Amino acid sequence: MTTVLPQDLEPLPPAAELRRQVARLLVIRGSGHLSDGQRRYPLWELENSTLKRLLAEGVGGVILLGGSAAELRLRSEQLRNWSEQPLLICADVEEGVGQRFEGASWLVPPLAVGRLHRSDPEGALSLARRYGHCTGRQARLLGLNGVLAPVCDVNNNPDNPVINVRAWGETAATASALAAAFVEGAQAEGVLCCAKHFPGHGDTSDDSHLELPRLPHGRERLEAIELPPFRAAMAAGCAAVMTAHLQLDALDPLRPATLSRPVLTGLLRHELGFTGLVITDALVMEAITSRWGAAEAAVLAFEAGSDLILMPADADAAIEGLVEAFSTRRLSLEQLNQSLRRREQALAAAGSRAPAASMAPLEGLGELETPQDQALARELVEMSLNTRGHQDLPPGPGVNLIRLDNSLACPFLPAMAPALLRPAAADYRCCLLDARGPSPWSGDAEAPLALDRLPDGPLFLQLFVRGNPFRGSAGADEPWPAVIRQLLRLGRLAGLTVLGSPYLWEALEPQLPSGIPAGYSPAQMPLAQAALLTRLGLAAGSPAEGGFTD
Amino acid sequence: MTTVLPQDLEPLPPAAELRRQVARLLVIRGSGHLSDGQRRYPLWELENSTLKRLLAEGVGGVILLGGSAAELRLRSEQLRNWSEQPLLICADVEEGVGQRFEGASWLVPPLAVGRLHRSDPEGALSLARRYGHCTGRQARLLGLNGVLAPVCDVNNNPDNPVINVRAWGETAATASALAAAFVEGAQAEGVLCCAKHFPGHGDTSDDSHLELPRLPHGRERLEAIELPPFRAAMAAGCAAVMTAHLQLDALDPLRPATLSRPVLTGLLRHELGFTGLVITDALVMEAITSRWGAAEAAVLAFEAGSDLILMPADADAAIEGLVEAFSTRRLSLEQLNQSLRRREQALAAAGSRAPAASMAPLEGLGELETPQDQALARELVEMSLNTRGHQDLPPGPGVNLIRLDNSLACPFLPAMAPALLRPAAADYRCCLLDARGPSPWSGDAEAPLALDRLPDGPLFLQLFVRGNPFRGSAGADEPWPAVIRQLLRLGRLAGLTVLGSPYLWEALEPQLPSGIPAGYSPAQMPLAQAALLTRLGLAAGSPAEGGFTD
Repeated sequence: MTTVLPQDLEPLPPAAELRRQVARLLVIRGSGHLSDGQRRYPLWELENSTLKRLLAEGVGGVILLGGSAAELRLRSEQLRNWSEQPLLICADVEEGVGQRFEGASWLVPPLAVGRLHRSDPEGALSLARRYGHCTGRQARLLGLNGVLAPVCDVNNNPDNPVINVRAWGETAATASALAAAFVEGAQAEGVLCCAKHFPGHGDTSDDSHLELPRLPHGRERLEAIELPPFRAAMAAGCAAVMTAHLQLDALDPLRPATLSRPVLTGLLRHELGFTGLVITDALVMEAITSRWGAAEAAVLAFEAGSDLILMPADADAAIEGLVEAFSTRRLSLEQLNQSLRRREQALAAAGSRAPAASMAPLEGLGELETPQDQALARELVEMSLNTRGHQDLPPGPGVNLIRLDNSLACPFLPAMAPALLRPAAADYRCCLLDARGPSPWSGDAEAPLALDRLPDGPLFLQLFVRGNPFRGSAGADEPWPAVIRQLLRLGRLAGLTVLGSPYLWEALEPQLPSGIPAGYSPAQMPLAQAALLTRLGLAAGSPAEGGFTD
Repeated sequence: MTTVLPQDLEPLPPAAELRRQVARLLVIRGSGHLSDGQRRYPLWELENSTLKRLLAEGVGGVILLGGSAAELRLRSEQLRNWSEQPLLICADVEEGVGQRFEGASWLVPPLAVGRLHRSDPEGALSLARRYGHCTGRQARLLGLNGVLAPVCDVNNNPDNPVINVRAWGETAATASALAAAFVEGAQAEGVLCCAKHFPGHGDTSDDSHLELPRLPHGRERLEAIELPPFRAAMAAGCAAVMTAHLQLDALDPLRPATLSRPVLTGLLRHELGFTGLVITDALVMEAITSRWGAAEAAVLAFEAGSDLILMPADADAAIEGLVEAFSTRRLSLEQLNQSLRRREQALAAAGSRAPAASMAPLEGLGELETPQDQALARELVEMSLNTRGHQDLPPGPGVNLIRLDNSLACPFLPAMAPALLRPAAADYRCCLLDARGPSPWSGDAEAPLALDRLPDGPLFLQLFVRGNPFRGSAGADEPWPAVIRQLLRLGRLAGLTVLGSPYLWEALEPQLPSGIPAGYSPAQMPLAQAALLTRLGLAAGSPAEGGFTD
């Protein structure tokens, strides 16, 4: 850094004004629900009185999670009413707005489109663009102006627990082409997109929500694999980039990318020439909070080259810390003004692309998902399925063995989910394998499933397995290949579906004899279950099977 | 019946008008969600296009289930916009509006107040009245004008799988006093109440959702036990009565109460002198549909003396059947006019008690639950707890063994539920016992829990068990008394909570040595968990324990 003489310094704005300017750089977390009592994660989601106060004090952004589409529409309007300035209201709607907000379109994970790109690049590009349009339009209609997507990480490491099927591709070329197409589609609808997680989180096998992953990659390797999708997204006009909580020792042996000046200012701003908005990933994540306090993390992020601070562990402390850093000239006012300008420009640009009447009228919320959106969702599901064998299940009674991460938070398995109802119609009784249930494991590596703990009869395995942030190992530590061998030996394998991880499917599929009905869907939601089971000969069950209600 | 000569007959209205009049008598089911894709029970909940058509054709009522309070507010307005007449919009909010619609107040089951009535009748009456006010006011603010409560059944049979803690009392005197107090409170807020299930469903051990229960009780016995709460509710001005799907052979050996003229016209209208609205219970229930078609069931219900037909299995068929019955004079126009008049009067009376601005403004939905409501909810929880022992759990690692009916539909166990987090903070690892998981049972009657399938260490048992419609046996078939003995023998019982059934608690509590922390809560929601665990010395855990999010 060059030494700055006092007379060169721009005078500080009045304290209150400086504080408001700094506050504008924060993006705090709220629940998409309207009442405090509905918050799913009260530790992370500020209560209404605090949200209201912080917005009144000038905080400039909110990231929302939870609630239905209708609630989100009411909530975003409420938040705007609590603020005197244009807000950034954003959400992690990487897989369609319906991934997070029920009632909107829930689309297949992007990697499914990436897989199509191998055989049908034009078709995949068109789907990625429509995926962007669908997501951007629904987001804007519900009051979001920030879509924290696309994931630009190249998922070249099948063990990645956190990126996985969220990525658009497993090669740089595919991820680049599809991420750019998504950005074009989404931003045309009047939202800003955010390419993430810079400089590339695809090759990690640790979860940065739990610890700080380290990568040895140097500049050359990054240029070959990690950077192209970010370059492509930027070339497509992507308004923002989100930083990764991972440490690239070759670029900066001291700090994770989020807090690294060599990465954010050196690589992203200077070398890649990115002039848009740089947003940190959530600073509450363990990789950051375990080493830095809320104030210091915010200052370091800003010092490194971030414009916006996402989910500081303590918003007031982050504001204090930044105000102090500007007041003492540790951070320059020039940088502050530049970040404020970038923020304003990004918001204005997003807004300028939105049709005049921006939010959905309340009476139209039931039709947020248009017939075109529904057709896209179905088309994405159909193109992404992979099935083999098509024969009826052996006659029941049998067992519909459903493996899932957490039955208490399982939006893809409502009471009437096809994965539950259709096997039931074939007299296959549901058995849920939740990691938190009584153990189904025998301890015998050759016959790992303790069959005496399950109902009798042939087993139809349905494995809902995918990498999910905070959820650990993506099921990779469970002995499914050995279970398949065990059930085949006993003649009790009735069929298999894998919903989520392509890598698990690829590990299991070669073991299956041709007669066994089996299939894979990258998506897990009911629409995908229905399509997959239909292809396996399990058509919609008789209504009676679902005959209970509250 | 007297013979009517043709010249005495009132002429039929024009066909289209007759159809509209008949349609007004129907109450059809919709989801509280706005979009078709969000329906939880698509078999029961009409899709929007059908709802819209039926309301345009004159259907007069809708029963709603599902969705948050905010969605319900939007939904009820939408339904009213689809209709040209005043609608009855109702819901089964027996335990507070929050029981069904998240974001509103979820209160303890009524039987908890009934239990208090033994020792503190005045306190119980006051709570029941406030319970009614809270429920009625929130219902009205969200656009409901019908509260399908109070349950007036006397729960004098602990094996009752369907009434159970929904009842206000286990004796006629208690149920009468509290049901009346609830009605006074709720109706004062501008909704109509509906006393159910006439002539009394408390003494059944079958679930009428699954089969038709039969009772031998004659007139005298009914007068002593079953009828007083209905008389009391009527005396308190209760606008409506709902019929029961159960057969009282002494009154009518041929038909269930819902379709029985001796029960509805003879007993309810003539003997009890009820001049308000009679509503059937849902006609889609198996007890009805297994024996009568949708048209015939509606005609029989009306012939028996019902005014409104709730959830016919097929609304169009029910309308056709009723139109035909009026056209052929099987049913009299006089009865039709009388039912329409009763409906109109009940709606008008409810509306006349509502303050001028009836629905909540959208921007106020986050504060639907007032501080008074929150205080009531807490007070109800506190008075209903029953604990013994107050000592720390043995040091972990241990097992937090949670027994529940259905982990896939478990609104009382969100990710941050105290029943999950607080034992985790004491290093007790959660193990979920879902009836649909791998069996935890050894087959040994003296040591029924297969401990080798569970994590090691002391066990803290949390039994969420209560009678729920359609859910069968209320856990009564599980060997919990033997499990307690087994764990005590092994020195592995760390503690016990029962949330729901007082009968299970009463069966287990005497077995416990005094040192073991143990407690009972009739309510299951997080508020009750927090209060119960606090009393047992498990205070709010450190925030870190809940440290994951989406």
